[in-house]
Amino acid sequence: MNLTAHDITALLLSLGVLLLSARALGELARRLGQPAILGEIIAGILLGPTVLGRIPGAADLIFPTQPAGQVALQGFTNIAVVLFLLVAGLEVHLSTILRQGRTALTVSFTGMILPFAIGLAAAWLMPAFLGFHHGQNQLAFILFMATAMAISALPVIAKTLMDLDLYRTDMGMVVMAAAIVQDVVGWIVFAIILGMIGQAGTGTPVGVTIVMTLGFAVAMCTVGRWAVNRAVPWVHAHTSWPGGILGFVLALAFFGAAFTERIGIHAIFGAFIVGVVVGDSPHLQERTRRVIEQFVSFVFAPIFFASIGLKVDFVANFDWKLSAFVIAIACAGKILGCGLGALSCGLPKRESWAIGFAMNARGAMEIILGLLALEYKLIDERLFVALVVMALVTSLMSGPVMQRLLRRPKSKRIVDFLSSKTFIPRLRANERSAAIAELAQVLSATTGLPAASITEAVIAREAMMSTCIGDSLAIPHARMPGLPGPAVAVGMSAEGVRFDDDATATIVVMVLTPEEDDGVQLELLADFARVFRHEDTRRIALKATGYLEFIGAIRTAH
Amino acid sequence: MNLTAHDITALLLSLGVLLLSARALGELARRLGQPAILGEIIAGILLGPTVLGRIPGAADLIFPTQPAGQVALQGFTNIAVVLFLLVAGLEVHLSTILRQGRTALTVSFTGMILPFAIGLAAAWLMPAFLGFHHGQNQLAFILFMATAMAISALPVIAKTLMDLDLYRTDMGMVVMAAAIVQDVVGWIVFAIILGMIGQAGTGTPVGVTIVMTLGFAVAMCTVGRWAVNRAVPWVHAHTSWPGGILGFVLALAFFGAAFTERIGIHAIFGAFIVGVVVGDSPHLQERTRRVIEQFVSFVFAPIFFASIGLKVDFVANFDWKLSAFVIAIACAGKILGCGLGALSCGLPKRESWAIGFAMNARGAMEIILGLLALEYKLIDERLFVALVVMALVTSLMSGPVMQRLLRRPKSKRIVDFLSSKTFIPRLRANERSAAIAELAQVLSATTGLPAASITEAVIAREAMMSTCIGDSLAIPHARMPGLPGPAVAVGMSAEGVRFDDDATATIVVMVLTPEEDDGVQLELLADFARVFRHEDTRRIALKATGYLEFIGAIRTAH
Repeated sequence: MNLTAHDITALLLSLGVLLLSARALGELARRLGQPAILGEIIAGILLGPTVLGRIPGAADLIFPTQPAGQVALQGFTNIAVVLFLLVAGLEVHLSTILRQGRTALTVSFTGMILPFAIGLAAAWLMPAFLGFHHGQNQLAFILFMATAMAISALPVIAKTLMDLDLYRTDMGMVVMAAAIVQDVVGWIVFAIILGMIGQAGTGTPVGVTIVMTLGFAVAMCTVGRWAVNRAVPWVHAHTSWPGGILGFVLALAFFGAAFTERIGIHAIFGAFIVGVVVGDSPHLQERTRRVIEQFVSFVFAPIFFASIGLKVDFVANFDWKLSAFVIAIACAGKILGCGLGALSCGLPKRESWAIGFAMNARGAMEIILGLLALEYKLIDERLFVALVVMALVTSLMSGPVMQRLLRRPKSKRIVDFLSSKTFIPRLRANERSAAIAELAQVLSATTGLPAASITEAVIAREAMMSTCIGDSLAIPHARMPGLPGPAVAVGMSAEGVRFDDDATATIVVMVLTPEEDDGVQLELLADFARVFRHEDTRRIALKATGYLEFIGAIRTAH
Repeated sequence: MNLTAHDITALLLSLGVLLLSARALGELARRLGQPAILGEIIAGILLGPTVLGRIPGAADLIFPTQPAGQVALQGFTNIAVVLFLLVAGLEVHLSTILRQGRTALTVSFTGMILPFAIGLAAAWLMPAFLGFHHGQNQLAFILFMATAMAISALPVIAKTLMDLDLYRTDMGMVVMAAAIVQDVVGWIVFAIILGMIGQAGTGTPVGVTIVMTLGFAVAMCTVGRWAVNRAVPWVHAHTSWPGGILGFVLALAFFGAAFTERIGIHAIFGAFIVGVVVGDSPHLQERTRRVIEQFVSFVFAPIFFASIGLKVDFVANFDWKLSAFVIAIACAGKILGCGLGALSCGLPKRESWAIGFAMNARGAMEIILGLLALEYKLIDERLFVALVVMALVTSLMSGPVMQRLLRRPKSKRIVDFLSSKTFIPRLRANERSAAIAELAQVLSATTGLPAASITEAVIAREAMMSTCIGDSLAIPHARMPGLPGPAVAVGMSAEGVRFDDDATATIVVMVLTPEEDDGVQLELLADFARVFRHEDTRRIALKATGYLEFIGAIRTAH
């Protein structure tokens, strides 16, 4: 069998459509403060049987209609999820767990046991409601429900913590450490479940699969870790960067994936363990990690998550009672389990419940778990849809609830206050005072403050020391009484605005902040400096001829 | 049809084996001063019918044996080559051509016309020798041979120029500009050839395919270029970096590829044109380009090039007469064509022939061209093997011959002079003079110079100004009479070596250079500074406990 030109056309077209729509909706979700995966899943739902499939013939225009093309697409999404789990593994830092000690272990333990028990009880007491059919492996089904409740989603949790500037705090590290333990244990249990049901193709007995799974995990985390830690400097020493190390890490992931697939559990488990082991090496460079993570997170992962929507009709299989029930037990188990664990370690009340909500996010991991269970016919479409809904709902609520519990403002960035209304592409002024007056005029219109008092305050600050910094940038600023929040205006001048005897600015950014808020001014000035440290950003921003180009350059620095 | 666990295991295993062996032999080739693609192709030949295939059953242990697995692997290599051509397109800078003006256009014209004419004549006069069979499309065959002689390989040429430090010279830019023109014209002609023979599956008449091909190329380079140039800042402004722009560029490549596949020419043509158009936008950031290039060049491309070896038996189909003939006409046409063109523009003789040899490298492009012709049954295996051999031979000779013609030394890098013999993991000394004496001892053993005179010369230099620079590094150095070439020793001290009152060095690098050669000292000191600017490199090198870790960290900065 060979791929025909028709198959290849459909394969490429569907990859393009999946990638573009997943990224577009993923970005939209992020603009709304939600995790990108929400948009990526929705893109797939729109393109799948749920929406596009209802228009006769529409799906055939995009997706492969012949078996060969379908298999090729399926092969690609399989590779994509393997690489996604490699990246998820790379994010795990085993050493983080050890450093956090007792609190992290307690939280991960209670946060695992309670949801596990609740999931187990639910699957045992009401199997029919959850869609269990006689003739299936009941033990595997019960264990699956328990694991599905106990697992958490490292990538989503890390992202939420970063958004709230909590990632490098003690609390953030406790959450990360606990999530790592839960993820690793969860995947091992799930691998064992797959071993129990999935040996049809391999002919390996259950016992052997379980022993091999545990053996593989233990061997990789001991001997494998030692070997990788020796191999990475060797690869660096004997090959060119980044070609050598990229090839090494990816090949290792493929081998690990092939091995676990061979012993009767899924390929992603091997890739995840390889990621954990490789990511743990102190010799692995940040730059290498970044190349892999960026390409995988923004090319492979969106295609994979969108492809999930192609498999199931999310409307026909949506059962609101089941979804509500799954959400309820998932939240109860995880929030109580983690929250009580944190409380028992003596953490403050609000912080403890914030930890509970942080760990409650299920994100990508739950969806992948559910998808595999669906593919192995362990669960039906209704329960799968309910799990996806639960994963998305728990991820969505995590950030906002934590923010409220901790009364934690999001960190302020200069880009959030830019607007085309306060952007002057060509300043008329060519010296400091006139330029400041011009920008004050614009900010007066948006803030309602008198232009004269803005000019006066900014020039007073400027008199203390020029705000023109190297590389043709100036950032005149002042704190203004009666201002409800920060206000920023940008003016550009191709000829340059004279600031001192020896400094001219091409870009003049005026920053006004409320008088009573000291922190926000420092935060914005620091963010400004950080943004313009990027060479590409500076180069493109300095040449920008309009607002779109300017903000485009600024955004890429984030 | 679905992928079974067996298929997925084989798919992942074969990707791992292809990637690892291709990267390993690719690195080996680079260590020997040859292009990586040489090693990548050889890896495939070893794994294919040529070698591994002769051991009964061996290939079945690695590669998919079932149709579904084979199609999935085929689908992946198709996607890989599409992405490789996207990257090749991204390297094309249309603006370079315009800037180089007359010389570049003359060289590209003469360097295209002469090989084209020779290839055309050969295919016309001796079709049987080249493996042409009656019943095939003779016009397409003749045009193919002509194009195959006329095309050049941008990536290989760029790499060779960079190795010789010629990339940013006038001559380098003339070569690049001429190669760009030849590549673009070559691919368009080839696309037309594919249109002539490949419409079997699409039912599109030849004329329509040709018109659509040209129309697509022209539309993309005019309207498409304008639209992309507007879209890139928009994407930057409205999405997060690099997720937004990566998704946009890759999706565009998939769409372009699907379109050209649909109109009856190959998918790679569309990806190449998309690459050219996107790469031309001044708004595209270097960092974005790098993420795509690194992942594609070191993951997708090696897998693709190795997979070529799986298709053909390179020993059974090797015809030395045919290969010698193809090499002869390829070299004659290209070297004479480009060389004479450069001479006619008044360039010096040695430089003109160097340009001829630079352009003669066929590398990846010829191999892809040949592979497509083979798949479309336009040529037979014998001619395909001869073309691959020609591509590799012309690429191999290019660098060494240019180096000899231009008497151009390769640029000196500190890493080339490091050795475990001159590496001291723990210096006994904790102050300057003693540390210098310790390193002088080591260098005395390898250079034969007396240790005392090395110490004296280095300390004399040190007395002028301390060579201890920020970040715990010191680089004492001296020029020594009687030294045949540079010599470098490295000593590390966890406690630090006191250099001045306020500076201690963790790493002490001693550099000795010949007295009469002024340039090499500067070159090595500059390279040292450049290497240690990388944050990761510095961090890991400072913590290195042995030679392997140290050199590993240094190498990653190159």
